[in-house]
Amino acid sequence: MSQSRTATTFPPPVMEARRWLEGVSFPVERPLINVSQAAPVEPPTPELRKAMADFALNEDSAHLYGPVLGNDDLRTELAHQISEHYHGQVAPSQVAITSGCNQAFSATISALTTEGDEVILPTPWYFNHKMWLDMAGVTSVALQTGDDLLPDPTKAEALITPRTRAISLVTPNNPGGVEYPAELVQAFFDLARKHEIRLLVDETYRDFDSRAVAPHPLFSIPNWDETLVHLYSFSKAYRLTGHRVGALATSTALLAEIEKFLDTVAICPGQIGQHAALWGMQNLETWLAGERQEILDRRAAIADFMPDIEAKGWKLRGLGAYFAYLEHPYDMPSDELARRLVSDAGVLLLPGTMFMPASDAAGQRQVRIAFANLDRAGLRQLFDRLQSLSF
Amino acid sequence: MSQSRTATTFPPPVMEARRWLEGVSFPVERPLINVSQAAPVEPPTPELRKAMADFALNEDSAHLYGPVLGNDDLRTELAHQISEHYHGQVAPSQVAITSGCNQAFSATISALTTEGDEVILPTPWYFNHKMWLDMAGVTSVALQTGDDLLPDPTKAEALITPRTRAISLVTPNNPGGVEYPAELVQAFFDLARKHEIRLLVDETYRDFDSRAVAPHPLFSIPNWDETLVHLYSFSKAYRLTGHRVGALATSTALLAEIEKFLDTVAICPGQIGQHAALWGMQNLETWLAGERQEILDRRAAIADFMPDIEAKGWKLRGLGAYFAYLEHPYDMPSDELARRLVSDAGVLLLPGTMFMPASDAAGQRQVRIAFANLDRAGLRQLFDRLQSLSF
Repeated sequence: MSQSRTATTFPPPVMEARRWLEGVSFPVERPLINVSQAAPVEPPTPELRKAMADFALNEDSAHLYGPVLGNDDLRTELAHQISEHYHGQVAPSQVAITSGCNQAFSATISALTTEGDEVILPTPWYFNHKMWLDMAGVTSVALQTGDDLLPDPTKAEALITPRTRAISLVTPNNPGGVEYPAELVQAFFDLARKHEIRLLVDETYRDFDSRAVAPHPLFSIPNWDETLVHLYSFSKAYRLTGHRVGALATSTALLAEIEKFLDTVAICPGQIGQHAALWGMQNLETWLAGERQEILDRRAAIADFMPDIEAKGWKLRGLGAYFAYLEHPYDMPSDELARRLVSDAGVLLLPGTMFMPASDAAGQRQVRIAFANLDRAGLRQLFDRLQSLSF
Repeated sequence: MSQSRTATTFPPPVMEARRWLEGVSFPVERPLINVSQAAPVEPPTPELRKAMADFALNEDSAHLYGPVLGNDDLRTELAHQISEHYHGQVAPSQVAITSGCNQAFSATISALTTEGDEVILPTPWYFNHKMWLDMAGVTSVALQTGDDLLPDPTKAEALITPRTRAISLVTPNNPGGVEYPAELVQAFFDLARKHEIRLLVDETYRDFDSRAVAPHPLFSIPNWDETLVHLYSFSKAYRLTGHRVGALATSTALLAEIEKFLDTVAICPGQIGQHAALWGMQNLETWLAGERQEILDRRAAIADFMPDIEAKGWKLRGLGAYFAYLEHPYDMPSDELARRLVSDAGVLLLPGTMFMPASDAAGQRQVRIAFANLDRAGLRQLFDRLQSLSF
């Protein structure tokens, strides 16, 4: 095969990890514990399913093209909810709906960059962001973080060149789990504004943030939309991964550019997903608050269980959203460890090597646990298995 | 805004045309006739809507991520139906499902090309193909067609350079309507194979082809998948535009590359659309045959009505699928004519300028009528309005 955009990047890590399961059998008494994918495995609530079914049965528009940037009603509701949650001013025209949050990222990058440009990403990074930047011909400039996984604005500034077009953050972080402090996000916004580049803030996991207040003040800053691109997903909050519905908020001028990308790769977001997201926002506030509490309880369970494996040399680097990010004590690279965990412990997780450049040795020592689908009992089993590893 | 990928291309034509309607009112006795968008405006059959509603209510998998390349059951059924229809050999592993056919095109281009490569497109071209090639940094090399709108393989061969990666055909053609003869498609396949480039054949409208037999023999050629990339859409056949479900067929090696693109811009196709497409293929064969007959009747009506406007100087250049492609007799550019038709005749169609380079004067003389949603009475009205134009 000749050189191509896709040849510049690696295969989808989640699909690769799934292939590690091929040919492995798991005994009934010790079934697979899959903590590889950051997505709900339960379907939406019965009421939401019924709303979707009714929509498919009764509304013709459920089956027809809609506007490229999403339906007006959903854009309006999301703009309202962002404005409320962040105490800011967001208009419907500053919001667009996409077929998932990955698409919001790739559309934004295509509207901001061209061949040879640079985007700064803290490491560990979200691999789909890295993949898209590769395919877009954009250099991912790695901003290394320390043991707390928090990126340093001063170090970031040192990485800015004339080709830098944006800095891209994920908070709560995937894979690291950490919630970036409001002042830190503000500092990155100030840095981006100073250098006239964009700040992307992917807040896919914001509904599970442990802070009950607005996680940052950016939407209240005048002309926020000239600097900020906020990315969001409805998939985690309302369990809509199979319907592909995400969003972004930025300037209408940038959205006009993004519209070109979305028109050619999607035409419009799926109608049933958009309807479900709207219904969810309008009807599931209380339910979602309960979901958040459950995730926070699971997070607390991990904190409780950590000492058991810290005794074996494991260390907790980040914890939050759907993720625990750990340093392992073994004398082997994390991708080898991950494969051995499948066969030896019946655990599927993703190695740190998937979240940073091969040149960064830290990835060899780290693993990501996407814990959201395990209740306290399931987490206890997971930690028991990690504790009893014999290699 | 700094230079970016999206800055290299034009805004979505369909959205632009929609904006021409703003501020224009249409009298009750002469409502707008919208022949701008090539999509069904009717919803799916009640049975299919019920199948979708049941799926949303009863199947957890309706709401969860699926494989990046689409669900196995749908890939298997489509591979089977392609094999039957084209008398060829297509395996499920040679088929992938995408979130619409535009996405199948953009994914394929990203897997075949990089910055500075070239793809040959007959003109008039499908504007979303041109837009994606612009954004991908790929030069669209225009292959001019004559009055019959059929591309000439000899002329195409003269355009091939060391940077040419593919030739991309659309048959039945959008916007031209013409059905490419089987020998012509074969000749392009032979040309592509000879030069070790790919042949893309977008057959979005194949279900409305007037020929009851296989429209080309490519799938029966040994190792077809090393040369051919077949693109398809379920949206037109089963009225699923709002669910974004398309497909492609090519080699498993190329699909492994395409998987990287799809993972980052979509993660997976929507589940309800995939289920609807599968249900449609399994249950709506007879219904679809009737739909095809209806479209062919409408096409026949246009042929019947053409003499009325030929008397005014109009000429029919292409007719088929959802489209009539006409040459107009007026002393004005087609984009100016299109805007005047909105106000003066209550007709929204797309000008030829949207389907070719600005340097090609032919576009100034041409318009596309997407006629599929007008029955014979509606078409009669459309032609009456065109016939009575007074400028």
